[in-house]
Amino acid sequence: MKKGSKISNAVIKRLPRYRRYLNELNRKGVDKISSRELSDLIGYTASQIRQDLNNFGGFGQQGYGYNVEALYNEISSILGLDKEYKMVIVGAGNLGQAIANHTSYYKAGFVVCSLFEVNPKLIGIKINDIDVRDCEELVQYIEDNAIDIGIICTTKDAAQEVADRMSFAGIKGIWNFAAVDLEVPESVAVENVHLSDGLHSLAYHINRNHYLS
Amino acid sequence: MKKGSKISNAVIKRLPRYRRYLNELNRKGVDKISSRELSDLIGYTASQIRQDLNNFGGFGQQGYGYNVEALYNEISSILGLDKEYKMVIVGAGNLGQAIANHTSYYKAGFVVCSLFEVNPKLIGIKINDIDVRDCEELVQYIEDNAIDIGIICTTKDAAQEVADRMSFAGIKGIWNFAAVDLEVPESVAVENVHLSDGLHSLAYHINRNHYLS
Repeated sequence: MKKGSKISNAVIKRLPRYRRYLNELNRKGVDKISSRELSDLIGYTASQIRQDLNNFGGFGQQGYGYNVEALYNEISSILGLDKEYKMVIVGAGNLGQAIANHTSYYKAGFVVCSLFEVNPKLIGIKINDIDVRDCEELVQYIEDNAIDIGIICTTKDAAQEVADRMSFAGIKGIWNFAAVDLEVPESVAVENVHLSDGLHSLAYHINRNHYLS
Repeated sequence: MKKGSKISNAVIKRLPRYRRYLNELNRKGVDKISSRELSDLIGYTASQIRQDLNNFGGFGQQGYGYNVEALYNEISSILGLDKEYKMVIVGAGNLGQAIANHTSYYKAGFVVCSLFEVNPKLIGIKINDIDVRDCEELVQYIEDNAIDIGIICTTKDAAQEVADRMSFAGIKGIWNFAAVDLEVPESVAVENVHLSDGLHSLAYHINRNHYLS
């Protein structure tokens, strides 16, 4: 990647998707691919793809296409997936447990170190071999263990206070599953998950025949 | 919306986000908003916003801006959120239960009618007052109850077979949480949830100071 260059947020949001498809191609033994073939696969236009990937010094060669493995590795490195991240999950209900399960499948280095709860029935148990601790210990735990990412799986009402504690303890990023916009210091990156957006897009596609007629 | 006009998938993907912000503004009693103010809020450029919203006949008036409530209602209607959708969830583990919980908060008409499982320990119980049925009954249930949307919360390995059964039974859309690309007939809309994409974008932002230095 060119030093000092500025990549827009929109491009960053598309990179994980490129990476997924490149991973799949790599797994299938595909060495190289053109922007047109990538376009058929991913659903972005070929020109959009060339423009996006030009941000990183231009991996494509005219008449040859992209080297699948090199591009996959480069995108992984740009995203920072060649490092390990320590995470905590706050909220050990169904969603917190599902996320703990889910991330355990990741090959990349996202490690859930602990879960935190306010419900005394859950404090002290283990989920997937991970301890569930009292939420009161959250700040100390993040500081002591240099936790990078906090995952919020609490109710909407509790989310801001949890984010405040995480920010106070020096967390670097928050992955927020609560349906509320968090206020955090500029030093903390936030990625909000809005599950219902996908369902709303789906509703459109279910109705498209009606709307396009 | 103009009859017969074609709206790109990318615009459709942005509409739920517009709708969320407009809903918040409406709740706060804001009547009208300019594309520039919307831009500050949502993070898309003002010109992108004008271009997107022009797809729907142009709600904005020069020097006035957009009528928040009218635009919210129009986008809701375009997405098809003025209707009710009957849904089933296959996989009643932590994720399936979390999704059943999650969708129960939606004000729009997405109703989970039943969960389905292969695990005999879960078949017959109720989650959030919703019955967990044997997966063998899935096709019959979808047909009998005219289910619109199937939500797949199974393992990666089971997902395609579940999608096949749903498609066979005449489902209109699939909301897929399994990390696998499904093959379905053209008549079935699929929305894949890729949770890890958000985490990967977050990793980038945590590292951005390093990369942008």
